[in-house]
Amino acid sequence: MGEVIRFSISSEQRLLERFDDLIARKGYVNRSEAVRDLVRSALVEDALTDPEVEAVGTVTLVYDHHFSELSDRLTEHQHSHHESIISTLHIHLDHHMCLEVVVLRGPYGVIKALGESLIGTKGVKHGRFVATTATHDIP
Amino acid sequence: MGEVIRFSISSEQRLLERFDDLIARKGYVNRSEAVRDLVRSALVEDALTDPEVEAVGTVTLVYDHHFSELSDRLTEHQHSHHESIISTLHIHLDHHMCLEVVVLRGPYGVIKALGESLIGTKGVKHGRFVATTATHDIP
Amino acid sequence: MGEVIRFSISSEQRLLERFDDLIARKGYVNRSEAVRDLVRSALVEDALTDPEVEAVGTVTLVYDHHFSELSDRLTEHQHSHHESIISTLHIHLDHHMCLEVVVLRGPYGVIKALGESLIGTKGVKHGRFVATTATHDIP
Amino acid sequence: MGEVIRFSISSEQRLLERFDDLIARKGYVNRSEAVRDLVRSALVEDALTDPEVEAVGTVTLVYDHHFSELSDRLTEHQHSHHESIISTLHIHLDHHMCLEVVVLRGPYGVIKALGESLIGTKGVKHGRFVATTATHDIP
Repeated sequence: MGEVIRFSISSEQRLLERFDDLIARKGYVNRSEAVRDLVRSALVEDALTDPEVEAVGTVTLVYDHHFSELSDRLTEHQHSHHESIISTLHIHLDHHMCLEVVVLRGPYGVIKALGESLIGTKGVKHGRFVATTATHDIP
Repeated sequence: MGEVIRFSISSEQRLLERFDDLIARKGYVNRSEAVRDLVRSALVEDALTDPEVEAVGTVTLVYDHHFSELSDRLTEHQHSHHESIISTLHIHLDHHMCLEVVVLRGPYGVIKALGESLIGTKGVKHGRFVATTATHDIP
Repeated sequence: MGEVIRFSISSEQRLLERFDDLIARKGYVNRSEAVRDLVRSALVEDALTDPEVEAVGTVTLVYDHHFSELSDRLTEHQHSHHESIISTLHIHLDHHMCLEVVVLRGPYGVIKALGESLIGTKGVKHGRFVATTATHDIP
Repeated sequence: MGEVIRFSISSEQRLLERFDDLIARKGYVNRSEAVRDLVRSALVEDALTDPEVEAVGTVTLVYDHHFSELSDRLTEHQHSHHESIISTLHIHLDHHMCLEVVVLRGPYGVIKALGESLIGTKGVKHGRFVATTATHDIP
């Protein structure tokens, strides 16, 4: 984890009280953990403006498996990008609907385009793509 | 899938040309598919302003498994909310780092709070939460 | 501004170095200022999950003033909500197009609905709504 | 506005009913207007992945004018970027607090950096930046 150091922050007392209230509700054990999370989120958001940066992404897809051949098409689509796809988790939501979570890894621009094309596959009802930078990039 | 009907949309030709260009790049097979996706996204976004709405969420967590007892703590945390957690996918990113994708289901307010508390767990480096409404809610 | 206090944060050195690099690029003068901004953003985001919270919003509208009666309709629309609208800034982008920035104040749910209905006015090409909480709410 | 054409969309009836309900609540007069807005938002979002694209942005700043010299510093900062800043709207929220809305125009990357540095100015309590593409770019 590298060397741990301490630095100090000045703040109006009222701002700090409001922050302590928020992080208690969110389940953080202390301020350092919460501040580091805010810092990492800002770094990730900044890094993801670069399409070349190495990233990990998660695509969440909802679709009806009765829709003819969609599963086959998604599987085929994923195999032809196997170098970017780490793993897929499939959940049967009900008699009709499936949730599929596809984990992608590669340059941010590449996995974003792949995520969007999975979401755009005919028959997918709704999809969301999120990314974070690969871990060696954000301490 | 219910009865399929057709309706017509008027648009400046230039706007439609730009749209056709965008959906070709995103891999949509036709305009209907692309318009329905935009409509569903607007419906999901609107639905998720209600904390009571039944939703499905995905939490993506990045953490160092050498961080003592974090895996145990995450597992324990998830078991105590087993009624909201459908499944967990674990990926070894490298010698140190893990990616864990947790799929949640329940009222949006409940799974959002649970997702944030997983992200806030001490030792988690970065996390993202996304949600969609459960499928019977959006046609 | 209330009493100013100091508190200390622990962090891996590499994380702090990355943060210092980011805040230098963003023009912050010191870490305290940057951390306080991250904290306030988290508080504002949390506060805006409550539709009753007192908020200030900005609606940015782009439209063609040649589009018959749109200006009149926007003006009329705004007058009928004058208690929520503080001020309007109008800019002539080119021979055809106008940019109008409308500043709203009131309960978040009310100004969000008003902002969306301004964006939805026939003839408005594109619009964006952003909000922050009123200032007495976030220290 | 260019030639207006019509095209048709197929959809499950239930999806269309949900959409009609949403657009009625948002105040749209008809489906074409609502679909065109969704299409334009998708085009703007896509365009703003390019830092070179000509854009218009709005920065909303909240600050305490008693904070010594902040107004002067903001004014000076804005003058040194006068080629990117079209106009500024200033509102007195209460005895202490000001809302300042700054309208920017230029390449997206340039105005985003300028917006962030205004938000990062010491003494600014909270800020938000939004952008849209300049109007000739999106029909």
